[in-house]
Amino acid sequence: MNSLCKKSKKQLQIVFKGNERSLFLYMNKKLLVVGTMAYDAIETPFNKVDRILGGAATYIALASTKFSINCGLVSVIGDDFATTDLEKLTNLGIDATGVEKVAGGKTFFWSGRYHDDMNTRTTLDTQLNVLENFTPKVPETFKDSQVVVIGNLHPSVQKMTLEQLDSSKRFVLLDSMNFWMEHFREELDEVIAMVDLISINDEEAQLLTGEYSLTKAAAKIQAMGPKYVIIKKGEHGAQLYGEGKVFIASAYPIDQVVDPTGAGDSFAGGLAGFLTQVDSIDFDSLKQALVVGSVFASFTVEAFGVEAIEKVQNTELEKRILDFRALTHFNWNDKTLNL
Amino acid sequence: MNSLCKKSKKQLQIVFKGNERSLFLYMNKKLLVVGTMAYDAIETPFNKVDRILGGAATYIALASTKFSINCGLVSVIGDDFATTDLEKLTNLGIDATGVEKVAGGKTFFWSGRYHDDMNTRTTLDTQLNVLENFTPKVPETFKDSQVVVIGNLHPSVQKMTLEQLDSSKRFVLLDSMNFWMEHFREELDEVIAMVDLISINDEEAQLLTGEYSLTKAAAKIQAMGPKYVIIKKGEHGAQLYGEGKVFIASAYPIDQVVDPTGAGDSFAGGLAGFLTQVDSIDFDSLKQALVVGSVFASFTVEAFGVEAIEKVQNTELEKRILDFRALTHFNWNDKTLNL
Repeated sequence: MNSLCKKSKKQLQIVFKGNERSLFLYMNKKLLVVGTMAYDAIETPFNKVDRILGGAATYIALASTKFSINCGLVSVIGDDFATTDLEKLTNLGIDATGVEKVAGGKTFFWSGRYHDDMNTRTTLDTQLNVLENFTPKVPETFKDSQVVVIGNLHPSVQKMTLEQLDSSKRFVLLDSMNFWMEHFREELDEVIAMVDLISINDEEAQLLTGEYSLTKAAAKIQAMGPKYVIIKKGEHGAQLYGEGKVFIASAYPIDQVVDPTGAGDSFAGGLAGFLTQVDSIDFDSLKQALVVGSVFASFTVEAFGVEAIEKVQNTELEKRILDFRALTHFNWNDKTLNL
Repeated sequence: MNSLCKKSKKQLQIVFKGNERSLFLYMNKKLLVVGTMAYDAIETPFNKVDRILGGAATYIALASTKFSINCGLVSVIGDDFATTDLEKLTNLGIDATGVEKVAGGKTFFWSGRYHDDMNTRTTLDTQLNVLENFTPKVPETFKDSQVVVIGNLHPSVQKMTLEQLDSSKRFVLLDSMNFWMEHFREELDEVIAMVDLISINDEEAQLLTGEYSLTKAAAKIQAMGPKYVIIKKGEHGAQLYGEGKVFIASAYPIDQVVDPTGAGDSFAGGLAGFLTQVDSIDFDSLKQALVVGSVFASFTVEAFGVEAIEKVQNTELEKRILDFRALTHFNWNDKTLNL
């Protein structure tokens, strides 16, 4: 059961009641997540935690477990990584075969402080530790994953991952950040050319293209390779570009943000989990996936660390997606304007 | 014909083909706009203009002329105000009976420079001139206007206006800014308690309530009196609160912002013009009005001053509203999530 994500028992009961083909199809829904696992120390204006489970891949994988898919995690940890923390993931069905434990090594550690507006933060400490020599090894069983999320890592590590994948119809989502754009631009450009979707924030899009206009920035990034571009704007939502179309989504409004850490990663995890189980990935399903991702992010920021995304129930997710529609849709017909 | 807004001739032909009651109803659709008329000197990273027609009330009234309503303007100008500029407004059917021309006085002058991001600006010069002793006088014919826009002015001047109105079913939209919030809070609170809708930006909402969360800020403002609150977020859109509901709208995406001046005022003008001609003002029509306002603002920023809002065609406005829907709506049904 280790390689099946959460809800797998229920799902298996359903497919066993059906036929073997359904089981086969279900078993074949695979998502590969490559990225960091970490311990985080976080300060906000309201609270402080010393050392909690974090890391982009942790959030991404945890979010994806809400879907009836197989999630394979490729990452690296030190032997200080608590068995209970690893079990948190594997108990939810995440396949951790690809998580390398470095004997005598220490897990990646990040510490940061959020400012009063909860939108900006200062990094207080970054200890790469075992991440410094991370060589991802994709398990055989996940080389044919339909969807792959390549988290924010050194571009050469991202490329190493891509080269291990079956080159078939996989859909690859890439994350990156300003540091790689500033110092490893050539390597990053190579990776960007290899992926289907890049998900970055507005400042990164501007840094990558030199364009203030997100529309222009997205067009330039598409010209670099990715068919689709998502530009995240934090509390202001996100935009999807592709197939000559644009989708502009607000962020789900939150009364009280407790800890923004992992919002972008939960967004990617919800989005990728959703995409892994759709029949075809196109602009329409990507729009839906973006909304799903936003809702996942909205839960994450309501508690410290992975707590909220671990606990959230499917009914709560569904309710918030319907709320999201009500919050953003309006009635309009040919006679409404009446000019 | 002076008291009928643009398209009035066409509209009159239509109503004359109908019956007298239609004409009566149409003639009765009145919008009162009280605010500043000005000359602006504007610098952007791309261009510079020395002295062009501006002022909040100018933008609001101009935007409203796209609708088949009567728009009455109450403002003050100096005798330096060009006859051609006043004719720009009256030729479009704006009733300028309430525009006081002060002999020997100079028109309100504002000068500002926009920074590279086009979102922030520095005020270089403000010469209140005739605005300093402005005492608004609402013409008898507009005291029963269905919709009233009270532009950004000294709260005591705003109050003076409100006291001249018939107290019947008028719907009042109020604008204000940080300066009045910081220095004339008591007077401003009195005015806020008298209006139906307040439209301010996110920083002003935070200043007015001390709340970072827009949801909390909106609730506090509603408790001060207004049934509805619109919080504008510039390029990030706007949010509407009221009747226990929320509507979150993106901004219409613009490739190249040329001059942001008047965006908020065109927004208010499009919104108010639309509301003046709907059968009933409720949350649903306010949602539509907010979208209409956003589209008006999107045109305004594409040229310097009032140029774009003057020239825009009804077909272009309608097209952008339909685009807006396509940009923000997504398909969703009970089976989409498939958790």
